[in-house]
Amino acid sequence: MGERENMKKHIHGGNVYKYKGCLDFSANCNPLGTPESVKQAVIRSLDMVADYPQVGCGALREVVAEYEEVDRDWLICGNGAADLIFSLCRAVKPKRALLPAPTFAEYEQALRSVDCEIQYYYLPGACGPGRENRTHSPAAGDFALQQDYLDTLRDGIEIAFLCNPNNPTGILTEREFLLRVLERCRERRILLVVDECFLDFVKEPGAYTLKAQLSEYDNLFLLKAFTKRYAMAGVRLGYGLTGNRRLLEQMELMTQPWNVSSLAQAAGIAALGEREYVERGRCLVFQEKEYLMREMKGLGLEVYPSQANYIFFQGPETLFEECVKKGLLIRDCGNYEGLRAGFYRVAVKKHEDNKRLIAGLKEILAPDTGNEANCGELRRR
Amino acid sequence: MGERENMKKHIHGGNVYKYKGCLDFSANCNPLGTPESVKQAVIRSLDMVADYPQVGCGALREVVAEYEEVDRDWLICGNGAADLIFSLCRAVKPKRALLPAPTFAEYEQALRSVDCEIQYYYLPGACGPGRENRTHSPAAGDFALQQDYLDTLRDGIEIAFLCNPNNPTGILTEREFLLRVLERCRERRILLVVDECFLDFVKEPGAYTLKAQLSEYDNLFLLKAFTKRYAMAGVRLGYGLTGNRRLLEQMELMTQPWNVSSLAQAAGIAALGEREYVERGRCLVFQEKEYLMREMKGLGLEVYPSQANYIFFQGPETLFEECVKKGLLIRDCGNYEGLRAGFYRVAVKKHEDNKRLIAGLKEILAPDTGNEANCGELRRR
Repeated sequence: MGERENMKKHIHGGNVYKYKGCLDFSANCNPLGTPESVKQAVIRSLDMVADYPQVGCGALREVVAEYEEVDRDWLICGNGAADLIFSLCRAVKPKRALLPAPTFAEYEQALRSVDCEIQYYYLPGACGPGRENRTHSPAAGDFALQQDYLDTLRDGIEIAFLCNPNNPTGILTEREFLLRVLERCRERRILLVVDECFLDFVKEPGAYTLKAQLSEYDNLFLLKAFTKRYAMAGVRLGYGLTGNRRLLEQMELMTQPWNVSSLAQAAGIAALGEREYVERGRCLVFQEKEYLMREMKGLGLEVYPSQANYIFFQGPETLFEECVKKGLLIRDCGNYEGLRAGFYRVAVKKHEDNKRLIAGLKEILAPDTGNEANCGELRRR
Repeated sequence: MGERENMKKHIHGGNVYKYKGCLDFSANCNPLGTPESVKQAVIRSLDMVADYPQVGCGALREVVAEYEEVDRDWLICGNGAADLIFSLCRAVKPKRALLPAPTFAEYEQALRSVDCEIQYYYLPGACGPGRENRTHSPAAGDFALQQDYLDTLRDGIEIAFLCNPNNPTGILTEREFLLRVLERCRERRILLVVDECFLDFVKEPGAYTLKAQLSEYDNLFLLKAFTKRYAMAGVRLGYGLTGNRRLLEQMELMTQPWNVSSLAQAAGIAALGEREYVERGRCLVFQEKEYLMREMKGLGLEVYPSQANYIFFQGPETLFEECVKKGLLIRDCGNYEGLRAGFYRVAVKKHEDNKRLIAGLKEILAPDTGNEANCGELRRR
């Protein structure tokens, strides 16, 4: 579709428009699909769609506050979590930021939009300056945040983003360590942004979230999305939590008053009633992730121990294109800072979809073995 | 709804959430309401709402390009025109801007979000520094851009916004004058942003639009919205046109890739097929505006000669509150730069609604006269 689309080519997953007809494993949403109640709420909201949306999302914030068990005044809603990442950067206007590599690409884009200098903390296993050409063999602890991360939180850094579990790796950071990070950030006057968008698909989200720290640390900002939890990426709705009301006011000044559509506000209110649906989605993810990881390892792929609703792995450099030929859209992670060609991510979907993925991968990776993957052969490649 | 909503209190019209049950004359949309085809397109799009929206809005831009008869690559879509005003300011990062006063408040908010200094051109009839206390009696040429506007386009100004017809006044600027402005802006390297969001409701939009200048002037940016033309403010969809591709690329870098929801993209594509609906809405506006203006003048209100789908007028300072008591939400324009208490704006709606407005205004302004307004009495107030 011309130059401007190409600029962003391959930067993100979920491009079902370019790869029409492919089964999409590149975006990571609740495998159960959008709840019917959410669709019905959007349809009902059409009666009032000639009106401007509610400024400040009062009714939606009320329901989110109840769901999250936080003060309504600690909440801000956005046109997807990505909208909030941008408005946060505009509100803070940091001069220098710390990002792990690899991580979600929007932090970098948003920081660059405010001319922020970016310093990377290369996670173990990542390719970084001076180690670009290293052939990576996976090892225990790969892509996990290490103790030395604390030392990089130096004066001069004004904002640090962490994604927990990290995207695209699915690696979780323990709360105990995050608390040390948070404390260090406060000492050094660094705003810590923890993106918990995928925490809903972790076995015990409550053991990892920093929500309980919001009241004590006004240098903490948490990001959450409806996109993944309720499979409603097309609607655009996310929210942020912080006890720092001045920061929220500043973010609002950086944004148009009607940034969240009426349709999204209605969808969000309906979605939060879907507790049982979320739980079913989670259970399905836990079960199917085991299946996918076992099968993928069996095919000789180097699979990392993801704790999210997606699987991060290494495979042949041609795998993305070969999958597309089989009608499977996977996430080529080669363009992430800290990664290179051969790193991939796939979403955990419904069993029949996952079976199709495994069948396709088998055809690509072990074409001569029928249904039996020749693992030894592949490992030696 | 707490402190944060209050910050924005009265800044904009359309707050049907605070003034529940009021008939809304404060937002200016096509009086025919949202076309059914737009609603149906949103409903159909729900089938794919688990997917991320199309980055770059390729399919929508294709249809807008055809509608506007411009190159698709000159187009950018946004989460409402307001989204584009903000991303434009972020892309240009101007140090100093020129705004007429009064005009649409979002230009100022967006400029302030990038720490831009704002210089006002006070339109004749406006209250400005040194003339705050003047009691204004309407005169011919009031709120129209004058020749001396050209002199304010000096070096140092990097961006100038004009709204044509202007909001909230409804006053149009002739194309001939705009061409001189555009030329002067090019000489002084000023980006000229012309907001044509309400031009659809002018009798001859073709005689005023600067679309034909896009190919020649890369310092020109035009703003358009679906909101007003198709009465779909709740959906959030607007677009911008410029021949300056570098500016468009810069704007995209300042924004998340998924800023326009799938629902909005589908709604927009459907809306552009509604040519006959737009024409019917326009005719209704022309007819009803005459009715409203005549009746309002008859009630002794000082009505300005709006050429848009809303009417700008002066009345008693308590009129907003008194209207709310009657179930009528009008736009109190007292908070616009260049205006003060006693300036108002009402949308032109369907005849039965307009009749309700006139009946309410009569009860407030001429309570003893029954259906006959005592004009002489009121004019002397």
